[in-house]
Amino acid sequence: MQKSIGYAAHGLKSSLVPFSFERRDITPTDVHIEILYCGVCHSDLHQVRDDWGGTVFPVVPGHEIVGKVAKVGNEVKNFKPGDMAGVGCLVDSCGACSDCQEHLEQFCDNAVFTYNSPDKHTGGITYGGYSNQIVVDQKFVLQLSDKLDPAAAAPLLCAGITTYSPLRHWQVKKGDKVGVVGLGGLGHMAVKFAHAFGAHVVLFTTSAGKTEDAKRLGADEVVISKNSGEMNRHAKSFDFILNTVAAPHNLDAYTTLLKRDGTMCLVGVPDRPHPSPAIASLIFKRRSIAGSLIGGLQETQEMLDFCAEHNITSDIEIIPIQKINEAYERMLKSDVKYRFVIDLASLKSD
Amino acid sequence: MQKSIGYAAHGLKSSLVPFSFERRDITPTDVHIEILYCGVCHSDLHQVRDDWGGTVFPVVPGHEIVGKVAKVGNEVKNFKPGDMAGVGCLVDSCGACSDCQEHLEQFCDNAVFTYNSPDKHTGGITYGGYSNQIVVDQKFVLQLSDKLDPAAAAPLLCAGITTYSPLRHWQVKKGDKVGVVGLGGLGHMAVKFAHAFGAHVVLFTTSAGKTEDAKRLGADEVVISKNSGEMNRHAKSFDFILNTVAAPHNLDAYTTLLKRDGTMCLVGVPDRPHPSPAIASLIFKRRSIAGSLIGGLQETQEMLDFCAEHNITSDIEIIPIQKINEAYERMLKSDVKYRFVIDLASLKSD
Repeated sequence: MQKSIGYAAHGLKSSLVPFSFERRDITPTDVHIEILYCGVCHSDLHQVRDDWGGTVFPVVPGHEIVGKVAKVGNEVKNFKPGDMAGVGCLVDSCGACSDCQEHLEQFCDNAVFTYNSPDKHTGGITYGGYSNQIVVDQKFVLQLSDKLDPAAAAPLLCAGITTYSPLRHWQVKKGDKVGVVGLGGLGHMAVKFAHAFGAHVVLFTTSAGKTEDAKRLGADEVVISKNSGEMNRHAKSFDFILNTVAAPHNLDAYTTLLKRDGTMCLVGVPDRPHPSPAIASLIFKRRSIAGSLIGGLQETQEMLDFCAEHNITSDIEIIPIQKINEAYERMLKSDVKYRFVIDLASLKSD
Repeated sequence: MQKSIGYAAHGLKSSLVPFSFERRDITPTDVHIEILYCGVCHSDLHQVRDDWGGTVFPVVPGHEIVGKVAKVGNEVKNFKPGDMAGVGCLVDSCGACSDCQEHLEQFCDNAVFTYNSPDKHTGGITYGGYSNQIVVDQKFVLQLSDKLDPAAAAPLLCAGITTYSPLRHWQVKKGDKVGVVGLGGLGHMAVKFAHAFGAHVVLFTTSAGKTEDAKRLGADEVVISKNSGEMNRHAKSFDFILNTVAAPHNLDAYTTLLKRDGTMCLVGVPDRPHPSPAIASLIFKRRSIAGSLIGGLQETQEMLDFCAEHNITSDIEIIPIQKINEAYERMLKSDVKYRFVIDLASLKSD
């Protein structure tokens, strides 16, 4: 076992504090990564506060991990010490079910999440990327191009793939009219991807102050969603809407903007239900409301390669890990453009 | 103009009573049909009671119309006097929009419904099939095979196409596991079609008494939806679920039964919202909730031809029109197996 350090929450309403723990020794198929950067995802906050239930304390969050390979097991083929590597939301799955066979490991009933999941290796719970190192089976490690800024690439591992995957699954292409609801960590990546795929991108936000920034990120139009006149102007015109807002809100305001056969895909789990959507709005234009969950490993690699080719990363604010509790408070106020990324070198100052 | 007789409701909470009105003279593209049978759809009741708002009184309901062609305009090609013909929910559309161009006239913003829609020919409101005759543009008249029993074929024009279309759109095929929620006018047709398409059909009902009948109609299994143990046994196993129940109910009980990427399609408009569906259930298996509306004319003809080929019609109870108010009361208690059909010959007894 290898002594490791990180930051953990030890209970409900606890702040994150320094925490010592052990990582397993590498098996023949493992990659040992020294973590350089870890993005701060809204789910980290939800898990720390047990908003979804099921949090096992102490919890070491973090699933947007970028680092440098330190060691590899003797059966590892695609990584060698010194390589840049990424780890996202998953560190294991059954490998045998139809989801795994179809490269959709995120849907495997036995998927192991990067933190707060039963860890078959240790018999305990997985610990995430708010830490100095991690050991992960090679199948769940992503290759990261040297072209990508490693800190700004970290959020691609969750915010990136969570938005890339549904845009690909619903086949967003050149000329499509695509809506993105919300300009946060997920939304700003959705705007970048939809723009890169050639879509006409309309960003919906409640904050007029985000207009200029949304356009800089790739939005063709920005609609203030509180303005019903502006909303109505877009009725029945969207091929696809990616809704990144988890806070409960009126879904009908968006489904009515879809064309016949259009889909609105939600990627945020609300902590209280949205108002019940109008079924008539679905029926009268054969519209759909769907959900999507991160992405499989193959698609995550495809996304990272696409990002390297098209020079796409997240807009970030780098913080030392000592500022993580403050960052959570700011995140709750949407006071971040658009993702906090922890520089794990800061762990050494503790 | 041609003097016509039918049954109409003259106001909220009025019974349907005999009503005299005029049909237009045929234009060169019109088909004049003597109505033999008209199915009684739940929407007839909703419109008569103005449950959805917008009912214009007097209202002559009826959009499951089967009759015999009496006269045709001189440009009519596919019909001649003496032919059997059907008219469904639509009698006109713009013909120019993308919906019309793609043979999906039901989604046209200017679709004219068979009753209670503005009638450009008369400047009034369209009157439906609870009447002795109707004049309809040839594009909105369906050919009906002599192989089909005309009374039992009438409900195909709404209940039939409303269930056939989503099963086709979501490509239900041999070997798929398909759920049908509710065994009423729509549900019993959905069971017949899904079975005819080769699917493994599971019927969900609250009434244990419907089990035997559901199996006779083509269901491979029947699940009593109040029994959570039975429901759980089917978790994550359905390719597609067609939900025909309009009464507000817990949708999550069914979405959780869908496989990854499965869709539940709703075809009933609830008068009060369903409890808000759990978005997590959509996200964690990339499931969808969708809606579907009747079908276009081309698909309705395809469905009628399929029914003639496979000997599929509705299970019906024939009533004279004088019993229509009583039939509505029985329909509210689900006391019909599975569709009332009015024999319009009874109009002559008034």
